[in-house]
Amino acid sequence: MYREQIKVFDCTIRDGGLINNHDFDDRFVREVYKALSAAGVDYMEFGYKNSRQLFSSKEFGKWKFCDDDDISKIIEGIDSEMKISVMVDIGRVNPDDVKPAKDSPVDMIRVASYVKDIDKAIALVNEFAEKGYETTVNVMAISRVLDNEMNEALHQLEEESKANVIYIVDSFGSLYQETTEYLVKKFKQIIKTKEVGIHGHNNQQLAFSNTIEAIIHGANFLDATVFGIGRGAGNCPIELLIGFLKNPKFDIRPLLDLISREFIPLRNQIEWGYIIPYAITGMLDEHPRTAIALREGDKKENYREFYESFMPAELD
Amino acid sequence: MYREQIKVFDCTIRDGGLINNHDFDDRFVREVYKALSAAGVDYMEFGYKNSRQLFSSKEFGKWKFCDDDDISKIIEGIDSEMKISVMVDIGRVNPDDVKPAKDSPVDMIRVASYVKDIDKAIALVNEFAEKGYETTVNVMAISRVLDNEMNEALHQLEEESKANVIYIVDSFGSLYQETTEYLVKKFKQIIKTKEVGIHGHNNQQLAFSNTIEAIIHGANFLDATVFGIGRGAGNCPIELLIGFLKNPKFDIRPLLDLISREFIPLRNQIEWGYIIPYAITGMLDEHPRTAIALREGDKKENYREFYESFMPAELD
Repeated sequence: MYREQIKVFDCTIRDGGLINNHDFDDRFVREVYKALSAAGVDYMEFGYKNSRQLFSSKEFGKWKFCDDDDISKIIEGIDSEMKISVMVDIGRVNPDDVKPAKDSPVDMIRVASYVKDIDKAIALVNEFAEKGYETTVNVMAISRVLDNEMNEALHQLEEESKANVIYIVDSFGSLYQETTEYLVKKFKQIIKTKEVGIHGHNNQQLAFSNTIEAIIHGANFLDATVFGIGRGAGNCPIELLIGFLKNPKFDIRPLLDLISREFIPLRNQIEWGYIIPYAITGMLDEHPRTAIALREGDKKENYREFYESFMPAELD
Repeated sequence: MYREQIKVFDCTIRDGGLINNHDFDDRFVREVYKALSAAGVDYMEFGYKNSRQLFSSKEFGKWKFCDDDDISKIIEGIDSEMKISVMVDIGRVNPDDVKPAKDSPVDMIRVASYVKDIDKAIALVNEFAEKGYETTVNVMAISRVLDNEMNEALHQLEEESKANVIYIVDSFGSLYQETTEYLVKKFKQIIKTKEVGIHGHNNQQLAFSNTIEAIIHGANFLDATVFGIGRGAGNCPIELLIGFLKNPKFDIRPLLDLISREFIPLRNQIEWGYIIPYAITGMLDEHPRTAIALREGDKKENYREFYESFMPAELD
């Protein structure tokens, strides 16, 4: 009944880190690691591997850099079969910082890329693949990519990259299930030798349903986060996904405990979830940055003015 | 591009009333009525038409009874083309309380029914239809109805009832989009002379996506509530639905104002939305009553114990 190839990929610390400058403390990250391991989750992503020459460690927590030693400290002494991932942004990683996979606790490196940067993404991903890592290319802002460019990028990824997985990233939370179906089918048509993945955003409460839609049409790498944590509207809640999947290796109960103990208190300190300005950017297919700015100001519940700010005075 | 037959049906005061004993004050209900009218919403449901012999007006607010005079007071002086609905439960309404439609501000009466009560539902709905009302039968708890009984009920509804719309009600918030597709297709196959409607619940964050799925397969009556208000996990958020639909008669802006001004403060007083115990009853296809009880007690964040309470000690 279930599809064994399906992998559940947790981004709690990485995507959640976008809300708090990647500054989760070790105790919290260990609790997450423990619970995800016990739940049978396949991958956990800790954060970004950014160059320390570009970002200050005074301003950002350790999961902005993801040093191998910091990861090793978290996982030490915890029984787990879960694989570990870090994400890199093009132009922000120094590939020389990345040791060969055999000397690192990291199993997978994911390269986030816009379609325009796909050549750079392929070069990076191939370099990491040669060092022994599993790799992915995560195609961001996919709702705004025209078909001709998408097709060319997918052919390049299929033919030139060593990535194991190519991800559809709904950066703006604007996809509905019909478009998700269209994209997964397109990806599957061209990407024949790699898996297809989905990373949803929950602006319109559609991250989980788009993930189900992607499963129906053959995506096997499924991103999710505990209690849906993530910048802005957040992500596909991993507890819903585990509740949906039929593979008996998954156990929702450690995740329920984790939410009770850690995420209910956390939700009172930092904001994510169904919040109207993020719903608006989702329905208008806009980057959430304007909504983030709104929520930090004193007009944070002034939705009509925010909505109208996207309506140009003159059309041209 | 849009489908003119689609009707947006607001249940804010009716379903929201399940949280506060139907005790919204007149000012609030008028604000909702005004905003929905300005937004181009097609129907607004005020509450239940229950017999005053069965329920005490000391215990419940006026929207448990929906007297015509109380509705007339709300709508007086507000320019609106929106139609007005009330809901009735089988065995709780006294049909003699219902005046002929021409003497009432109410346009539509909806009969909520389990499949086992479908004969009673048909008798009631025909009586209201004869009094001049638009009518619907809302088939509750649909996720637990076996196919043979569903088919028989649908044939009866098609052949014996005067209802204008037959509704799929996902009482437990347990439907995924594949089952929604299956049910809408089944309904459309048998219900040839009436419209099909959908009423989702948001336990698993799927009320909006199931509504989209129902639209794709031909449902034209779409229930929703402002900011997703409703008992437990709540309903399909009407602002997301209006943002999705393409009919230019809809305007989201009055709804954004309404949420800013009325629903953000209200949300701090009463609870609804994505809450783990309701997600659990949704994924287990259980009535939310146990989750409601949990949330009223002192173990309200004890999710694991709650989850395990559904796991029988012995299977038989």
